[in-house]
Amino acid sequence: MSVKVLTIKEDILSANDGKARSNRESVDKHAILMVNITSSPGSGKTSLIMQTINWARGKARLAVIEGDIASSIDADKVSEQGIPAIQINTEGACHLDANMIKKALDSLDLDQTDLILIENVGNLICTAEFALGAHKQVMLLSVPEGDDKPCKYPLMFSGADVILVNKIDVLPYFDFDMSTFSRTVSGLNPAGLVFPVSAKTGEGLEQWFSWLEEALDRKSGGA
Amino acid sequence: MSVKVLTIKEDILSANDGKARSNRESVDKHAILMVNITSSPGSGKTSLIMQTINWARGKARLAVIEGDIASSIDADKVSEQGIPAIQINTEGACHLDANMIKKALDSLDLDQTDLILIENVGNLICTAEFALGAHKQVMLLSVPEGDDKPCKYPLMFSGADVILVNKIDVLPYFDFDMSTFSRTVSGLNPAGLVFPVSAKTGEGLEQWFSWLEEALDRKSGGA
Repeated sequence: MSVKVLTIKEDILSANDGKARSNRESVDKHAILMVNITSSPGSGKTSLIMQTINWARGKARLAVIEGDIASSIDADKVSEQGIPAIQINTEGACHLDANMIKKALDSLDLDQTDLILIENVGNLICTAEFALGAHKQVMLLSVPEGDDKPCKYPLMFSGADVILVNKIDVLPYFDFDMSTFSRTVSGLNPAGLVFPVSAKTGEGLEQWFSWLEEALDRKSGGA
Repeated sequence: MSVKVLTIKEDILSANDGKARSNRESVDKHAILMVNITSSPGSGKTSLIMQTINWARGKARLAVIEGDIASSIDADKVSEQGIPAIQINTEGACHLDANMIKKALDSLDLDQTDLILIENVGNLICTAEFALGAHKQVMLLSVPEGDDKPCKYPLMFSGADVILVNKIDVLPYFDFDMSTFSRTVSGLNPAGLVFPVSAKTGEGLEQWFSWLEEALDRKSGGA
């Protein structure tokens, strides 16, 4: 039986690019590196951030902006580690936008900050379309989600500087082909780096930390 | 360190309720049961639908509406089984809306259909807010996503008639507490049914099929 394909165009973008540029200027003025982290719900963004908090101690002054529709579960976890944490509750909105980040930046002591990690709302779609002013786009895709996701959510994968394939500790229990996945990603995004990691066991995270350290060095060097 | 919480209200709802009501009337006129299936990316909606196609043979004339941002991977799979399949490509939109479903219904032979399964775009947020005209809301949450998801995506969980906890075949490898999960769901949604299943192995699916059979019986009985 043949498949009928209906194509329906819908404009879901706000003109928030100006505000994103202004956010970028604010953090640049303080030589802060700002990283936007996106993924589906439950891919492990918070676990990655908790690992990164441990790594950053003594290396960089970190602050975290947490985006969620409801609850402050994630910001509470971060805050328990003594790290400045801003929780944004979007009350139904499926992504952070530049205006929300502006308000969060206004609440942080930027003079005392080297690195801001933004944990976006769990969503592979709209989060890819709303610029926040971050210097780097990092996404997580966890093994249980499947290796076909780049075909279904191409914008998210094509716009990422780094794609962390998380939960590699459970690779034996899923049909996830890392070489198929890397090939698909590289077709969409030749410059995108793929790091297979487990935020739970720590496996593979040294690549992520090296990349982050290099990006921080470049930032503080004014590049 | 204390957490600052910023609350930002944003209206992301279109007034598509009228169109949803008209969709409902169309399917009611043909005594069709229409079910809207939502989940995160990679939770197993398509696998559930493939299992349901097998179950439905000889019991109900099934049609499937597939929503994706891009690609027709899922509709192709359905169509290979000889089942009428409409692929909606939303071109960036993060959810199906009632207007898209209207166009899909116009493309189906409703006189030859008893059951329509809608596979919504992989998204736990906006898909909960846009009524399509379906009689039943079914969501999947897979074990690897974690048992804390009802707190983070309350609207999705509170509006579901059935919540399928998929991928129970990998329960031993994840910290997912089914009783914690069920308790949280029942706080948000006392009438919601929770069925632990594996769409891969078939475990637990008999509950889902019984529920579907009963809903179909009620529909054809005119209730």
